[in-house]
Amino acid sequence: MTFPIPPGTRDVLPDEMRELRALMDGLRSSLQEAGYGEVRTPTVEYEDVLRQGDERAAGAGWRLFDEHGNLLVLRSDMTIPIARMVGTRFADVDGPLRLCYSGQAYRSVTRGSGQLTEFLQVGAELIGVPGVEGDAEIVALVLDALSGSGLRRHSVGLGDGALYRALLDAFEVAGEDADALMSALMQRDLVGLEARVRSAGLPEALFVVPGLRGGADVLDRAEELMGEVGATALIELRGLHDELSRRGYADRLILDLGLVHELGYYTGAVFEVYDPAVGFALGGGGRYDQLIGRFGKPRPACGLALDVQRVHVAQAAEEKMR
Amino acid sequence: MTFPIPPGTRDVLPDEMRELRALMDGLRSSLQEAGYGEVRTPTVEYEDVLRQGDERAAGAGWRLFDEHGNLLVLRSDMTIPIARMVGTRFADVDGPLRLCYSGQAYRSVTRGSGQLTEFLQVGAELIGVPGVEGDAEIVALVLDALSGSGLRRHSVGLGDGALYRALLDAFEVAGEDADALMSALMQRDLVGLEARVRSAGLPEALFVVPGLRGGADVLDRAEELMGEVGATALIELRGLHDELSRRGYADRLILDLGLVHELGYYTGAVFEVYDPAVGFALGGGGRYDQLIGRFGKPRPACGLALDVQRVHVAQAAEEKMR
Repeated sequence: MTFPIPPGTRDVLPDEMRELRALMDGLRSSLQEAGYGEVRTPTVEYEDVLRQGDERAAGAGWRLFDEHGNLLVLRSDMTIPIARMVGTRFADVDGPLRLCYSGQAYRSVTRGSGQLTEFLQVGAELIGVPGVEGDAEIVALVLDALSGSGLRRHSVGLGDGALYRALLDAFEVAGEDADALMSALMQRDLVGLEARVRSAGLPEALFVVPGLRGGADVLDRAEELMGEVGATALIELRGLHDELSRRGYADRLILDLGLVHELGYYTGAVFEVYDPAVGFALGGGGRYDQLIGRFGKPRPACGLALDVQRVHVAQAAEEKMR
Repeated sequence: MTFPIPPGTRDVLPDEMRELRALMDGLRSSLQEAGYGEVRTPTVEYEDVLRQGDERAAGAGWRLFDEHGNLLVLRSDMTIPIARMVGTRFADVDGPLRLCYSGQAYRSVTRGSGQLTEFLQVGAELIGVPGVEGDAEIVALVLDALSGSGLRRHSVGLGDGALYRALLDAFEVAGEDADALMSALMQRDLVGLEARVRSAGLPEALFVVPGLRGGADVLDRAEELMGEVGATALIELRGLHDELSRRGYADRLILDLGLVHELGYYTGAVFEVYDPAVGFALGGGGRYDQLIGRFGKPRPACGLALDVQRVHVAQAAEEKMR
């Protein structure tokens, strides 16, 4: 007889757990020392409440029914539950709210593959601080937390979640073409993106811009290509890059104009956390100025979440490279 | 519009979370300092795997289906998942295994009420140390952990999960009568128990023994009433009481011969944790010598789990009484 556990889940034995716990506690302590108060939400939420936050987030998790036949889901991220909490429990707070969390979430490994996974997250949400000021605080916070946990080579990719949509609008690409391009970009399939742009006879900027990745010169190049079109997004992104550089994080930043996120609630800057020692992102986040308003009084907000088990793998991989 | 969360779940805001986190970390640190290595298992398990551990444990949780139509459940306790882990992942370990955990579990508040709840547990499992030696280690461990977290008035109820079954067998009570008595006892309905014993013309010991609660004299009285019948259980219980008294815990012990647990896997001593400042148990556990064998090589084992939110309420209630 065998006694399997569900695919995408794990048993963690003491040696590994000791390291994971130290990492998780260390990351959370960094956030708390910076003034982020820990919160906790239920593992299970009503599906229509999560759907209020984002159509796709609600569909991504494991589903179950309660005794009254209501559809419940295991939370697929912490941002929507925290937006719900802020909208309903912090309605009277006007000043900035700094919240952090650690806990499990449950999500499709690849959308549509049917394979679900349980993962450990530590993250932070900054509510009530708009634009560059808020974005820079969150990115610096997470870079510092990772330095505190012993990483030496980590970096953050900076993009803008509204940039490509603005590009499509500016070139009046809509309908099937727009969907196909957006979908290729979300899969980071730049080859497919280029092929589609060429076969549809659309402007080259539609594949050149999302391929731009690197330092501040990336923004110069994008400005040439986009002109007025990308004005807002590019100005914000340059502002964020300048502000973080001013604070001493220049060598940890990678501008990435093809960075978009699957979840639909991002409205501005988007972030992805990397380490050259491993081939996957350690976490991600961004600005979501429209999300909290779906649950109460509108407030600007941004956040970033780390996958603790991936950060743990990166720690080990960096150790080996020393 | 309202955005409810499922009944039996909670949002925890920063002020409360800071206290819960300190409590949870403090309890876990106590266990770890005593040599208990932290482990982690998936939140979700296959229903038939949990059922292998205990029929009722599998039925107590929230159910969901995976993409292949397999029935999954949110774990209703940590002991069965850890028994599964020990049976499958520690098959080669012969010496004692000391494991601890902290995490959520999901269970009916009252069986059959349909009301389910998410709760935070911290607990310990001692595998490979049989009888009184193992039981005393676990009880002392948890009493110390609670003292470490600032409780001053906590105690542990000591009973034997096999005692009443032995009593029923000895008096040859079977079938409907036995089920009715067992069920009354599980609901701690001693009035109903007495009525049933009297109306069926059964020996008085069947309601007097489970009503015995107090110091070591309880064991003397039970021996008079039970004679040979309760020999094994009472000898073990006296041994445990003596050993814990020898270690200085006498004033923290309450012998309770009516203590049984709902879960069917307990085979010997059972424990329940109290604090006079609150009207509910803070946790419970016991010896389960047959459980690990259902997942691999048989090993004696016992464990105890605390409900962190209940301990937190007791902390606050004790503060008020000072």
